[in-house]
Amino acid sequence: MQIGVHKVAMAAPNDVSELAKLIDNGTVKADEIVALIGKTEGNGGANDFTRGYATSSYQTLLSRHLSISPDDVGKRIAFVWSGGTEGVLSPHATVFTRSAAKGKASGSRLAMAIEVTRDIPPEEVGTMAQVREVAEATRRCLAATGITDPKDVHYVQVKGPLLTPATIADADRRGKTLRTRDPNGSKAFARGATALGVALGLKEVAEGDVNEDAIAKRFDLFSSVASTSAGGELKNCEVLLFGNSPAATGDLRIGHGTLRDAIDADGVRAALKSAGLSFNGNPTEEDARRIVAVFAKAEASPTGAIRGRRNTMLSDADINYERHARAAVGAVIASVTFDPAIFVSGGTEHQCAPGAAPIAAIVRV
Amino acid sequence: MQIGVHKVAMAAPNDVSELAKLIDNGTVKADEIVALIGKTEGNGGANDFTRGYATSSYQTLLSRHLSISPDDVGKRIAFVWSGGTEGVLSPHATVFTRSAAKGKASGSRLAMAIEVTRDIPPEEVGTMAQVREVAEATRRCLAATGITDPKDVHYVQVKGPLLTPATIADADRRGKTLRTRDPNGSKAFARGATALGVALGLKEVAEGDVNEDAIAKRFDLFSSVASTSAGGELKNCEVLLFGNSPAATGDLRIGHGTLRDAIDADGVRAALKSAGLSFNGNPTEEDARRIVAVFAKAEASPTGAIRGRRNTMLSDADINYERHARAAVGAVIASVTFDPAIFVSGGTEHQCAPGAAPIAAIVRV
Amino acid sequence: MQIGVHKVAMAAPNDVSELAKLIDNGTVKADEIVALIGKTEGNGGANDFTRGYATSSYQTLLSRHLSISPDDVGKRIAFVWSGGTEGVLSPHATVFTRSAAKGKASGSRLAMAIEVTRDIPPEEVGTMAQVREVAEATRRCLAATGITDPKDVHYVQVKGPLLTPATIADADRRGKTLRTRDPNGSKAFARGATALGVALGLKEVAEGDVNEDAIAKRFDLFSSVASTSAGGELKNCEVLLFGNSPAATGDLRIGHGTLRDAIDADGVRAALKSAGLSFNGNPTEEDARRIVAVFAKAEASPTGAIRGRRNTMLSDADINYERHARAAVGAVIASVTFDPAIFVSGGTEHQCAPGAAPIAAIVRV
Amino acid sequence: MQIGVHKVAMAAPNDVSELAKLIDNGTVKADEIVALIGKTEGNGGANDFTRGYATSSYQTLLSRHLSISPDDVGKRIAFVWSGGTEGVLSPHATVFTRSAAKGKASGSRLAMAIEVTRDIPPEEVGTMAQVREVAEATRRCLAATGITDPKDVHYVQVKGPLLTPATIADADRRGKTLRTRDPNGSKAFARGATALGVALGLKEVAEGDVNEDAIAKRFDLFSSVASTSAGGELKNCEVLLFGNSPAATGDLRIGHGTLRDAIDADGVRAALKSAGLSFNGNPTEEDARRIVAVFAKAEASPTGAIRGRRNTMLSDADINYERHARAAVGAVIASVTFDPAIFVSGGTEHQCAPGAAPIAAIVRV
Repeated sequence: MQIGVHKVAMAAPNDVSELAKLIDNGTVKADEIVALIGKTEGNGGANDFTRGYATSSYQTLLSRHLSISPDDVGKRIAFVWSGGTEGVLSPHATVFTRSAAKGKASGSRLAMAIEVTRDIPPEEVGTMAQVREVAEATRRCLAATGITDPKDVHYVQVKGPLLTPATIADADRRGKTLRTRDPNGSKAFARGATALGVALGLKEVAEGDVNEDAIAKRFDLFSSVASTSAGGELKNCEVLLFGNSPAATGDLRIGHGTLRDAIDADGVRAALKSAGLSFNGNPTEEDARRIVAVFAKAEASPTGAIRGRRNTMLSDADINYERHARAAVGAVIASVTFDPAIFVSGGTEHQCAPGAAPIAAIVRV
Repeated sequence: MQIGVHKVAMAAPNDVSELAKLIDNGTVKADEIVALIGKTEGNGGANDFTRGYATSSYQTLLSRHLSISPDDVGKRIAFVWSGGTEGVLSPHATVFTRSAAKGKASGSRLAMAIEVTRDIPPEEVGTMAQVREVAEATRRCLAATGITDPKDVHYVQVKGPLLTPATIADADRRGKTLRTRDPNGSKAFARGATALGVALGLKEVAEGDVNEDAIAKRFDLFSSVASTSAGGELKNCEVLLFGNSPAATGDLRIGHGTLRDAIDADGVRAALKSAGLSFNGNPTEEDARRIVAVFAKAEASPTGAIRGRRNTMLSDADINYERHARAAVGAVIASVTFDPAIFVSGGTEHQCAPGAAPIAAIVRV
Repeated sequence: MQIGVHKVAMAAPNDVSELAKLIDNGTVKADEIVALIGKTEGNGGANDFTRGYATSSYQTLLSRHLSISPDDVGKRIAFVWSGGTEGVLSPHATVFTRSAAKGKASGSRLAMAIEVTRDIPPEEVGTMAQVREVAEATRRCLAATGITDPKDVHYVQVKGPLLTPATIADADRRGKTLRTRDPNGSKAFARGATALGVALGLKEVAEGDVNEDAIAKRFDLFSSVASTSAGGELKNCEVLLFGNSPAATGDLRIGHGTLRDAIDADGVRAALKSAGLSFNGNPTEEDARRIVAVFAKAEASPTGAIRGRRNTMLSDADINYERHARAAVGAVIASVTFDPAIFVSGGTEHQCAPGAAPIAAIVRV
Repeated sequence: MQIGVHKVAMAAPNDVSELAKLIDNGTVKADEIVALIGKTEGNGGANDFTRGYATSSYQTLLSRHLSISPDDVGKRIAFVWSGGTEGVLSPHATVFTRSAAKGKASGSRLAMAIEVTRDIPPEEVGTMAQVREVAEATRRCLAATGITDPKDVHYVQVKGPLLTPATIADADRRGKTLRTRDPNGSKAFARGATALGVALGLKEVAEGDVNEDAIAKRFDLFSSVASTSAGGELKNCEVLLFGNSPAATGDLRIGHGTLRDAIDADGVRAALKSAGLSFNGNPTEEDARRIVAVFAKAEASPTGAIRGRRNTMLSDADINYERHARAAVGAVIASVTFDPAIFVSGGTEHQCAPGAAPIAAIVRV
């Protein structure tokens, strides 16, 4: 296979003009698009409708080009949005295309696969059943990309369901027991279970170590490459796996690193080097032009302090801590890559060690 | 002279316990304290009372040690607070002491002076009269520090009055004309005039180029080392000048750089090198331990974009753009220095070129 | 004519299900819909995209029913959204239909007309040209409704253009002078000019009293029934006029009152009585069931005080003053009408005296 | 006894000038002050320091007048602040004085008592031990005021401890079990237990019905007059009980009502009538001048809807739901009383039925 990666800026959540241009001028073939991962300029909270508006707007655009209904566009293409462009973060979408291999493969190149699980009913959200379904989907992705060594996987984005008042009521009607009855509280279980699913699928944790009690609790168990989110609109889990495969052609490679905290510029540099960018000290502007996309998670330190200094993210009643964290992490990454159009999202249960967060980078070799 | 610099963490705006300990254990002599410059964890806006609360709390502490009234502490010691610890920024105060030179001077060392202007009546806020008074106070600071070449000055913090409904009414009663009748709008004039005053005092701009029309308008005229703020509680302007003087002893030096935008890590590194810290690529943790304090300004890009990417600072109705800017700049600086207890404040009229901002650093040589 | 008024709740900005049901069950005929006026759950600021999302969602729904493109739905039907459902305010849309008179008219009944002006170029925003165009459109509305006495008009909603960076640049290219170069600052001129246009059209102000200098300045000149807004997406002004006409049939009547400040429950009651609802003291729940829709403006007191007590709307850096004002006014109205689905929007230049605001009510007689 | 009630406006959290004037002109005797209950203009959240600043400022003022240390003022006088003046709410303090009876009592008049419990260790927060201690203190208040029928009690304000990271660690060291390990989550237990303590003390609930499991869970058990808050700075519980006593002199009476939701103006009117204000329909301005103070609680509806209309308080990620609720309730009360200087605070566990909230009023007879 060959994966194409195109970053398009957005002047508003419904601004799809840059992708429209790429399609019109032949740079992107609409029928090769498999996924969009992007940032929208909402608040990132429960009342952030910019994500839905962006999805709806791109679906309408692609509906015209693919001659299918907007709903069918949603079934065919994966949309992953994170709301909240705090600090310097810039609204944008990274568009992924997949086509047949072009020419002969020489060295491992960026590969990706998308697999979905069966529907996860509310009583399975945050349970081992969900962990195992995601692990299985992760393994199918591995097979689809032709990656044999899980170490060649650098970024696994998972979207799955959380509990809502409606699904809780549904479980009640059917007499089912839930991990929690708190919709907001279910996010940690949902994100945690899907992250552990990735960890299991990639053998980052041993089968015997993961059990129901460990989910959203034993944070020494984690994946270093999973990036998971949970949304009330989903019924099943969608797994997008990225790695380097000997079967893939093109000039893109992916790598990853770990941000040990919100100001870890070394972690950013390590991710770039892992992807194949070479530089001394810091990338020059010329080096940086070879960075195609960066995907990171951001989280407030669970201790309320970074490098021994207290911060006020967790006690701020005006600005949610996720917004503080994204503002900081986004600026630090952009200070190394010179590009503020970065995917930075919140919530890191079982995604790196507590307080740490994963970062992946795609570069042109 | 010899200047001491002590950074104290604050668990709340009224937490003065760390300075109390330094006084109690003899590290700091209360009667040598000349200034506190710090960050408090408010919103940084008109209704941010954490600054006043912090001043009141430190005045009460020092009142006991100096056996004078809290009000008299306020007259004797300069308090400069910036509200808003967005992102990783950490509430703290940097305490400056001044004592006689200790031993023989060898090379230029950190020196500082504080001078105040006469009261600036409302009709002079944002006018050439204010510019000239600040220029004069800046020159007196130069003399007091024994600095002969203005290039040895690296940081000039100025606090001055802005217009309030009360002072506007007072001017009306006396039949005086004002630069503006909008209290919030007067901030730009007030900060701009004091910054141009510093620029004039340090000969960064020529006497002939500065006139009333240029204030808050001709932004090609600026100081590279001024950092100015305006508050309704002030009647005169307070000028705190920092530089390296052959007359000063101790092991501290100051330097400065320019942040060309909110993600300019190179500007941070340049300021550290200017102060005398030597390193390749990036400072190691050992290098960084020699950084004593950093003072920077942060501002949203006037174009709404950074490195060609749109950001949403200026259109965000939920979070003020100054908060976005401080979150970004603070994280970028801390990613280089490893210390989130940094002074980062907003409002950069005539302080570096539009979109750029000054940064100063004090290091132990 | 006969005007139908249907209030539909919205579970999200893209929830058009209630209108869909009314169309499906024959209560509302899609081709009789002329306008939607509603509240969406955004922040009401420059980065509130819930308004656009709601418009897009209703256009898509009605496009199917009218067999025209979503864009053409936008040309055929007026959409007026106010973002921000603070306090108890509830997201909803009030759908207006217009059909031929049914049966014989007996007494004046709710009538409405919609007229648009020619395009208003940027150099005319906030000028007498705009005032006169709106006055003319208002007079055409009067004629269309068959209302002869302007006193029978109770609510005139106007949407018009404001200045944007793009239109300012356009004016510059053509060498035109503007009322202001500040996009945000142009709102007051735009809303003020259209409100004065209504006042002129309804003879609330004399032709000779209105001139360019009075716009957004001489606030003793005002309309008591205008409710105006300005948006960057508009080129011309859209005037929606509501009154009671002898030519209209049905069982609805409209009336209006003035809110002297944000806690003026008497003003709410006066508007209900003006529309024809009779009650002693306060409406009972049975009385209230006859209230079909309420439209009001909300504004922070320009003095910063209400009934002699200071409030903090204008100095709050965390919550915009318009949000405080809508929360208060919305709750006060709902406490009288028992229905939190009310249209309350901000910005009252030349709409009632300074600090006061218009309120209109439609009741079933 | 005779209770004096003086409402003082505050231009800022540290503005104590109005009380200073009342003391200077002899209206208030400093040594008769027993309590201050007020609103400050912070955000009402964990990082709201305006409450501490106000306490510190009044303590400093009264320290001078009482010739005791500020700390001792804190021990002698009860300070109850609620942060957050949303909508029209106005920063102020209501100062309570207590002196010997003046003249002969004629009819029941406003009486008050303040009692404290023993220290409540962290392991007892939210337990029956806390319930019983508060019930006992409530009974002591009854005895102190000479009130024999609990029906004559109309307002009981309780402040007590919550769990903090520090007290949780302390309990851990001593091997004690806690109701919850979540500091924020402990608020509901702490407020709930003290409210149930009042209910028990006033026989609003039967001894046999209250048990550990019921706290913060069985919300059909409640007090109709309790108003409770929890703060990390407290070790014991402070109970301020207000009622009408035959032993009290003066011209003040207190009454109470229940707000069934955030727009229940009838509940406001009922509270005024309960206190002895007589009026038809709505109070006139002359009637309203006899209202001395109003104290109410505000809470978002647990169903997310009011009178069948959805509101967005609970899903809003920009503005905390308590701020929405206070804005609405404050405006509704002020629309009846014409005075925006009202005490409205959040958190109603076991204080009236779910979704409802208590309101008390003091009037001059």
